[in-house]
Amino acid sequence: MAILSGKLVVGQSGGTTAVMNASLQGVIEEAQGTPGIEAVWGLRNGIEGLLAADFASLSRLGLRRLVALGRTPGAALRSCRHRLTAAEAEYAVEVLRQHDIRYFLYIGGNDSADTTLRLSQAAHAAGWEMRAIAVPKTIDNDLPLTDHCPGYGSAARFIAQATVYSELDSITMAPAYQVKVIELMGRNAGWLVASAALARRGGRGAPHIICLPERPFEPDRFIQQVKDAYRQDGYVVVVACETLRDTSGQPLGQRLSPTLYDAFGHPHLAGAALVLTDLVRKELGLVTRWERPGSIQRTFAACISEVDRQEARQAGVAAVQAAVRGESGQMVTLIRQAGPEYHCTTGLAPLAAIANQERTMPAEFLHLELDHISDAFLEYARPLIGAPIRYFPRQFLKHRGRP
Amino acid sequence: MAILSGKLVVGQSGGTTAVMNASLQGVIEEAQGTPGIEAVWGLRNGIEGLLAADFASLSRLGLRRLVALGRTPGAALRSCRHRLTAAEAEYAVEVLRQHDIRYFLYIGGNDSADTTLRLSQAAHAAGWEMRAIAVPKTIDNDLPLTDHCPGYGSAARFIAQATVYSELDSITMAPAYQVKVIELMGRNAGWLVASAALARRGGRGAPHIICLPERPFEPDRFIQQVKDAYRQDGYVVVVACETLRDTSGQPLGQRLSPTLYDAFGHPHLAGAALVLTDLVRKELGLVTRWERPGSIQRTFAACISEVDRQEARQAGVAAVQAAVRGESGQMVTLIRQAGPEYHCTTGLAPLAAIANQERTMPAEFLHLELDHISDAFLEYARPLIGAPIRYFPRQFLKHRGRP
Repeated sequence: MAILSGKLVVGQSGGTTAVMNASLQGVIEEAQGTPGIEAVWGLRNGIEGLLAADFASLSRLGLRRLVALGRTPGAALRSCRHRLTAAEAEYAVEVLRQHDIRYFLYIGGNDSADTTLRLSQAAHAAGWEMRAIAVPKTIDNDLPLTDHCPGYGSAARFIAQATVYSELDSITMAPAYQVKVIELMGRNAGWLVASAALARRGGRGAPHIICLPERPFEPDRFIQQVKDAYRQDGYVVVVACETLRDTSGQPLGQRLSPTLYDAFGHPHLAGAALVLTDLVRKELGLVTRWERPGSIQRTFAACISEVDRQEARQAGVAAVQAAVRGESGQMVTLIRQAGPEYHCTTGLAPLAAIANQERTMPAEFLHLELDHISDAFLEYARPLIGAPIRYFPRQFLKHRGRP
Repeated sequence: MAILSGKLVVGQSGGTTAVMNASLQGVIEEAQGTPGIEAVWGLRNGIEGLLAADFASLSRLGLRRLVALGRTPGAALRSCRHRLTAAEAEYAVEVLRQHDIRYFLYIGGNDSADTTLRLSQAAHAAGWEMRAIAVPKTIDNDLPLTDHCPGYGSAARFIAQATVYSELDSITMAPAYQVKVIELMGRNAGWLVASAALARRGGRGAPHIICLPERPFEPDRFIQQVKDAYRQDGYVVVVACETLRDTSGQPLGQRLSPTLYDAFGHPHLAGAALVLTDLVRKELGLVTRWERPGSIQRTFAACISEVDRQEARQAGVAAVQAAVRGESGQMVTLIRQAGPEYHCTTGLAPLAAIANQERTMPAEFLHLELDHISDAFLEYARPLIGAPIRYFPRQFLKHRGRP
């Protein structure tokens, strides 16, 4: 097959991760030396940058800046949340044609896969030969057809570490406070919340209770769990998804004062921790605390997963290679290899099977009766967070009575 | 002076820090080899452990466990919040006498200094010769007569780093959200909130607005600041103390629904971020986010300040040395030495001048008109957080128009 010659554009889209610039690094360094790619341009603010023909030249970015880029959290090209309409897609193809752009690489999640697919279809309909490849990116880990998503491992590492430390805080302070709720991200999928379970050893201790968005919240069951855990350990650490919903599907956060939450008229999904701690105080009379690391959990670059960073870069490299060898309408996937050592290679999956789909936690990763995730999940997640987490003795100095 | 012979007890009290076990390590390793100290005992749950005669033997804790202890956040002996009554102090002296305890070392903050002082006075009144020394410990950095407090540097490091990363998140996501509020600890003193300013370079960027507990919150002024910062940068990062109060002295958090906050009848001081983001949405119609790292900011041992950890240990060692040479009723202090290189030695200050006192931010560390802290504060705080923070390019790929 003849090499398709023209420019390559790359954009970043959706929520922040700690390693989405490592994917950008991978795309740029691979594209710079590849025959047929006449220039490497960045799209400012994702697809909005294409519609506005707002490009940044990346062709001459040197090695030192590329390495620094790969270690910078967030999106260096800035992100967007923009759903491409049919008219916009047609117009975008005109921009591609006008600038002789033959390669479109898009680093993002479910919505970005949709954008990449629409653009790819519009280009085909308009007779503009172009290769469109999506690079997976989401801390939520909710893209189908890939073992996991770049961005997840680093956020999971932060959460597992924060849970280890936060438990030591709870042990220190008991009984000054007794129940702590940590509110975490994840939209409709429990991957991030479940990653807190990597803090447990021997199946004991924090997190005592894991409230996944996959399961409707049942107050009575929750209160019983808190009571049991408190009786056993004298302190309780709960991790809960910020989007936790009740059995009618209403997010718990919506129960909060509308004057606080609905200034825009749209429902705010955050606030589960406030509702849960309130419930515990009222029902059990226990002292509570809550925390919400928010965007810190998806950007805390001081201790990311190196495995995650390398895979994010690798996904960027693989996307360019796939496009150049003629693939289009695909997303790069990570494929876990069999064997005693963790290792992933890259593959491809059709965007049509990924766009707007969400992969929630599968049944084998859940213990439904126990509201706890399974050992199978722990085995799945452990290699993704990189170097083993430093565990600390939960009770360093065991009670020895009178010496 | 003849050596006073007897047992040494050590306890930990008040809120968690990442390095309070490094102070415990320092006390134990120094006490183990010191003539006159016949045994080293730990108090479980601080002064409550003394009242209950609940001791842990630490005399034979080996080097390896001591080193691991010094790297474990939280209080290995567990903490308490207990104000000693006169009757309890008298009883506690009886326990000291009964067990032949001649050295009382207490790792804690303002309240713990009060406990140490009361016990010291009660022992003197009862004719029980004893040496009582407090070891400073608080992330709030609000103890008088010491340059700073062990625990502060590590929490400040976490906050400064989180602010750097959170700004990159804001830049990535603008305009999906425009104003972010990070709610931080610090009780009545702004040291922790101010430490976020270490994230700024050249006096620009996040944190755009710093809401210190030392200054009553003025809504109009705040809204004007948000407006100005948003006009300039297109995104705004606010750091605010969780105890922020309005001009009448009422904590902002108290404005929240009492059903959420007053199950115990006492005021909950947290929640400033909710009130601030609500105000911004209503007054300016901007999209907001908020986060509250909570106990994570005081325990995140994955990236603490090594300077802080070493000083915490040094303070523990110095406390034992002071007690053995006959000092009592004192707290160990850190004294910053003049010279181009940062270096602290230890000293002593009378507990009577420390107990129940709070050191808020002094005038020279504040720019009152600008609501920003001064360069003098930055020079003060920078060495305390240890190794320099890795800064990332705010706008890595500058806008270059059409390439």
